[in-house]
Amino acid sequence: MQAQLQTAVIGPTGYTGYELLKILFRHPRVKTPLLFVREGSEKTGEIGDVFPQLNGTGHVPMEPFSWSRAHQAGVDLLFLATPHEFSREFVPEAIRRGFRIVDLSGAWRLRCANNVAVYKFEDKDPATAKQLAEEAAYGLPELHKSDIAHAQLVANPGCYPTSIILALAPLMTAGLIDPDRGVFCDSKSGVSGAGKSPKQETHFVEVADNFRAYNPTTHRHRGEMLEQLKLEAEQLVFTPHLLPIPRGMFSTIYVQLREPMNAGRVEQVLRKFYDGKPFVRVFAPKLPEVAWSMNTNYCDLGFALSKDGRKLTLFSTIDNLVKGASGQAVQNMNVMYGFDEREGLQ
Amino acid sequence: MQAQLQTAVIGPTGYTGYELLKILFRHPRVKTPLLFVREGSEKTGEIGDVFPQLNGTGHVPMEPFSWSRAHQAGVDLLFLATPHEFSREFVPEAIRRGFRIVDLSGAWRLRCANNVAVYKFEDKDPATAKQLAEEAAYGLPELHKSDIAHAQLVANPGCYPTSIILALAPLMTAGLIDPDRGVFCDSKSGVSGAGKSPKQETHFVEVADNFRAYNPTTHRHRGEMLEQLKLEAEQLVFTPHLLPIPRGMFSTIYVQLREPMNAGRVEQVLRKFYDGKPFVRVFAPKLPEVAWSMNTNYCDLGFALSKDGRKLTLFSTIDNLVKGASGQAVQNMNVMYGFDEREGLQ
Amino acid sequence: MQAQLQTAVIGPTGYTGYELLKILFRHPRVKTPLLFVREGSEKTGEIGDVFPQLNGTGHVPMEPFSWSRAHQAGVDLLFLATPHEFSREFVPEAIRRGFRIVDLSGAWRLRCANNVAVYKFEDKDPATAKQLAEEAAYGLPELHKSDIAHAQLVANPGCYPTSIILALAPLMTAGLIDPDRGVFCDSKSGVSGAGKSPKQETHFVEVADNFRAYNPTTHRHRGEMLEQLKLEAEQLVFTPHLLPIPRGMFSTIYVQLREPMNAGRVEQVLRKFYDGKPFVRVFAPKLPEVAWSMNTNYCDLGFALSKDGRKLTLFSTIDNLVKGASGQAVQNMNVMYGFDEREGLQ
Amino acid sequence: MQAQLQTAVIGPTGYTGYELLKILFRHPRVKTPLLFVREGSEKTGEIGDVFPQLNGTGHVPMEPFSWSRAHQAGVDLLFLATPHEFSREFVPEAIRRGFRIVDLSGAWRLRCANNVAVYKFEDKDPATAKQLAEEAAYGLPELHKSDIAHAQLVANPGCYPTSIILALAPLMTAGLIDPDRGVFCDSKSGVSGAGKSPKQETHFVEVADNFRAYNPTTHRHRGEMLEQLKLEAEQLVFTPHLLPIPRGMFSTIYVQLREPMNAGRVEQVLRKFYDGKPFVRVFAPKLPEVAWSMNTNYCDLGFALSKDGRKLTLFSTIDNLVKGASGQAVQNMNVMYGFDEREGLQ
Repeated sequence: MQAQLQTAVIGPTGYTGYELLKILFRHPRVKTPLLFVREGSEKTGEIGDVFPQLNGTGHVPMEPFSWSRAHQAGVDLLFLATPHEFSREFVPEAIRRGFRIVDLSGAWRLRCANNVAVYKFEDKDPATAKQLAEEAAYGLPELHKSDIAHAQLVANPGCYPTSIILALAPLMTAGLIDPDRGVFCDSKSGVSGAGKSPKQETHFVEVADNFRAYNPTTHRHRGEMLEQLKLEAEQLVFTPHLLPIPRGMFSTIYVQLREPMNAGRVEQVLRKFYDGKPFVRVFAPKLPEVAWSMNTNYCDLGFALSKDGRKLTLFSTIDNLVKGASGQAVQNMNVMYGFDEREGLQ
Repeated sequence: MQAQLQTAVIGPTGYTGYELLKILFRHPRVKTPLLFVREGSEKTGEIGDVFPQLNGTGHVPMEPFSWSRAHQAGVDLLFLATPHEFSREFVPEAIRRGFRIVDLSGAWRLRCANNVAVYKFEDKDPATAKQLAEEAAYGLPELHKSDIAHAQLVANPGCYPTSIILALAPLMTAGLIDPDRGVFCDSKSGVSGAGKSPKQETHFVEVADNFRAYNPTTHRHRGEMLEQLKLEAEQLVFTPHLLPIPRGMFSTIYVQLREPMNAGRVEQVLRKFYDGKPFVRVFAPKLPEVAWSMNTNYCDLGFALSKDGRKLTLFSTIDNLVKGASGQAVQNMNVMYGFDEREGLQ
Repeated sequence: MQAQLQTAVIGPTGYTGYELLKILFRHPRVKTPLLFVREGSEKTGEIGDVFPQLNGTGHVPMEPFSWSRAHQAGVDLLFLATPHEFSREFVPEAIRRGFRIVDLSGAWRLRCANNVAVYKFEDKDPATAKQLAEEAAYGLPELHKSDIAHAQLVANPGCYPTSIILALAPLMTAGLIDPDRGVFCDSKSGVSGAGKSPKQETHFVEVADNFRAYNPTTHRHRGEMLEQLKLEAEQLVFTPHLLPIPRGMFSTIYVQLREPMNAGRVEQVLRKFYDGKPFVRVFAPKLPEVAWSMNTNYCDLGFALSKDGRKLTLFSTIDNLVKGASGQAVQNMNVMYGFDEREGLQ
Repeated sequence: MQAQLQTAVIGPTGYTGYELLKILFRHPRVKTPLLFVREGSEKTGEIGDVFPQLNGTGHVPMEPFSWSRAHQAGVDLLFLATPHEFSREFVPEAIRRGFRIVDLSGAWRLRCANNVAVYKFEDKDPATAKQLAEEAAYGLPELHKSDIAHAQLVANPGCYPTSIILALAPLMTAGLIDPDRGVFCDSKSGVSGAGKSPKQETHFVEVADNFRAYNPTTHRHRGEMLEQLKLEAEQLVFTPHLLPIPRGMFSTIYVQLREPMNAGRVEQVLRKFYDGKPFVRVFAPKLPEVAWSMNTNYCDLGFALSKDGRKLTLFSTIDNLVKGASGQAVQNMNVMYGFDEREGLQ
């Protein structure tokens, strides 16, 4: 038996925290994670009191976070399932103390000041923050595996960007798409993407039998798409919608090609790009469905091409809590520590 | 054209308020109702800002409640879609001022002190409160039509009691059921029954794909069933459950008969009891479904009988927001003012 | 009391038939409709046996269709809620016999042979069929009110085209949109749009918690959009998706403007176009939600504009069974007979 | 590495087949199972064509069943996810040929001729069938572990009986319940319990936003409850209902106690009975929710007691496809082969 990794999860009581625990509890290469709560904001006690469905997996206490406890327990890797603002303030000190980090918040995903601005962070030490943001690896292993392997800080991508970037990357990087004709991303997300805190707009009666768009021009996740896909702001239109399902995400993406292509060629580009990458499945000529990637770490892709071969519609589905959050966080951990990328995720 | 009634709704911004408005706006015998909000607790403005789906029905303002405004506008009837505590305090003064009232809260449904106790009211004038509770009509028109017709104060029943009392009344009043062998009421309610305020337990992600029981021995609605059906506390077991649907209620009720009966006789008792009562439909030998009474003021009934003719299962469905609340409130108004009981409700 | 219209519904047992009956039963200008079933394909008996929720509205029998029965009963107007093929064969004879018709099927919506071809009709008398298709009014009253008023045959639009054409018409007819840059229509429909016959893909377990696209380049409703909006086939990309809700439709439409506009100007164009048209509500700057138009005949519109004022996203919601089918059919009847357009629909 | 078991699944294309494959594919003690289809009734090809979500787990072909192929491949254990009638005819020959069998159908669950009669089997060799039914182990490991360990044929229980028997067994076997006062079982099941074939009553539009009872006095699963709990037919009232969720089951069970008990004592009886049995969790004093056992092999229990300590309400939840079918089938396999009961199930 190899030595096992000691991880800790800060903020285990939300939906991404829960998914992360489910994966870590059965991961063969990690010990039972330490569960840390932020002072004053979360209850201590047994995790089984927060998530009764975890009963039967043994007693796992939640404790207030302290550096000394983290050091003493020999924590190697910190997962942050915390608010953006907390992560932005917490990470510089954690880096100084030598911890490796996978941050599930949006705190370190962006480099361009203009994009970061939407979060309205008030950094105590702006220079350090800027430098950290530049050094952080963007945790999409299909695009940045070697950066992630060596990073001390991995910024786990947002759920919308994960579904959209993975769909567009193969044809964008091959220069086959003409972004000047517009990149229109129509995304639909399950409700868990809005978090666990009860709000009027996540009340069952408001969501069930309903469907709506929100934040059509201003969603925070735009910046990640722009930076990762090297798009100009005016080229990208991104509209998130709320699906009346607990989890799952579907993106329909409309682009125009520089030269007419046929379906076989498009399929080939997609398949080649993801050859050897275990968590992207190309379903063409079938179209993927949200249910197929539910409770998995897969991103499933498909497409449709107009008769004239110029207008391409890409389809992309993920489970927003797994590949869109906690599954990808563990995939990043696997890459950081040289484990098989699939470990704990199948 | 006859003179029309001037009504006012206090507390129009919840789910029962909304249903009430939808009915009153199309009711041929009432003017556009005045909409009053409680001080400090609800927003003023247009009702169309709270319920955008009401746009197109004209501008209806919400105003802070004041006695002078109610008198000046010539209000005949007040509908209270307000918290129990508010109604308990508000009604004595409204009665003194001569208004007739349909109270959708639980403030005046109960007479037995022991049952009332669950609400923990702190009456300023307990004697008046006791007397008012005794004079109030229990607003189930199928049982108390003539009381309601003459009442100044009508206590609109709870949703669970409506579905359960209407199912049991025909056989109970005929003395055919043996309550000593237990009256087991297994009720399932749509989520709107829990109100509009967002809570963790009404978050879409917590309710969807889920089902659970709650308050199995202590639900406040027990008292209404005991009083209306003349049951002893130990005879009644009532278990409410939360259904993952926005609205609708289904009660399955298990009782034992004093003497064996056959299905034809049971059907006859039900049909005879509700003959001429337009809002109870007996579906036997079919079993009613929640969808059939959805968005209607019907209570739909069915039953199943064990082979030996001793164990009877009754099925009862209503829309918890209509027959279980606002539709019944309007039915009560129709009875109070001598309109056809069905007016505005079909 | 004015003379009332005698209508008949052929094919009343599907979802659109049911919605149509609910409206006609309460419509003040029509008698109880005759209900005709197609020979061999639907059951006769009481409509209350097919839709138990209609019990309590009186006994309405379903009878096999015959011309003599229709003539003898003095039928003025026939509603066809029948398969496309049946309507295509039935209508020429009905026209010869002098009946006015609102056909809810797709049989007569299209004029361009190329578009009609997707239905694979085998017309016995192609010349007559061609002429009828040219004479038929396209039953979108917001665009063709005077044609409809005088038409003997009204082709009720498809649900997807209704939601999309109403959103695009104001800016398209004003020449503000550049269709050469692409018109991308991303539509999401409730499951009732797929009809009442049980299929694997409408099984509850396959639909619940799921979301998927279907027929992305080939859906039959494309032709209506092309003809009504005067678009070239290569300009239009239309992707229908299946929403896990029983009814309701949401279209998100991406276009580019010829000249930059500001939001106020876009709103003005929309509002002006629909001024005096009671069934289109412009919600801007709010975004409409599916729930707001549910169970109504409204089409609700909203939009979002990119910062540079060039990329416009339109949002459009309808109830696919009401404005997308049976409500619009009754709206057409109202126009054909000079009734107030809103009669029976509020 | 120990030798691994070779299993085969006959009938892998339904919902229980799919769940079984998901578990067997990750079970450490079994090889990839052979997938057999019944002649003429199911398609051959890749299982990934039937369940696209299984793509990525390797190519697994489905082949027509033949005895020679089963022998040649060295199959140890046959899982039957087939119709009752098929299993009833198939099993005698399989037994003769020496295969061990876990039958997920209802073919061999019952011993009493009266109970078996509901299936209307036409046995070619009634004597053998009767004997096999007597020798078959009833596959509820919490009650019959040692029988299962030695059985050649294990009859996997129905989903409703699993949830109800596990709730009642502790107090029934202790003689604390008085069955003469009635055992009222109110069960609610997710739609996958009705199978994968599309029917009108499983159409999404018929199920969503709805709730209904069905087969209230005649459901086939009654016999299992009677035999396993040693109840007389007239003591048991069982009402199944259809929940608008894809999977999950909740049973609320009303009984009366011979002597008054307090809650602590009831909890103790439950906990003691299931001590050391890993797949039953006693949640008292909490009430279990369907979501907690979803996608797990747990049966979760809770209860409520009336004030007088005489009327007991038991709550029991399972995932109808896991503990109610395929998970329990694998649990039975684990017992049959001496593996840890939890292997592959956590």
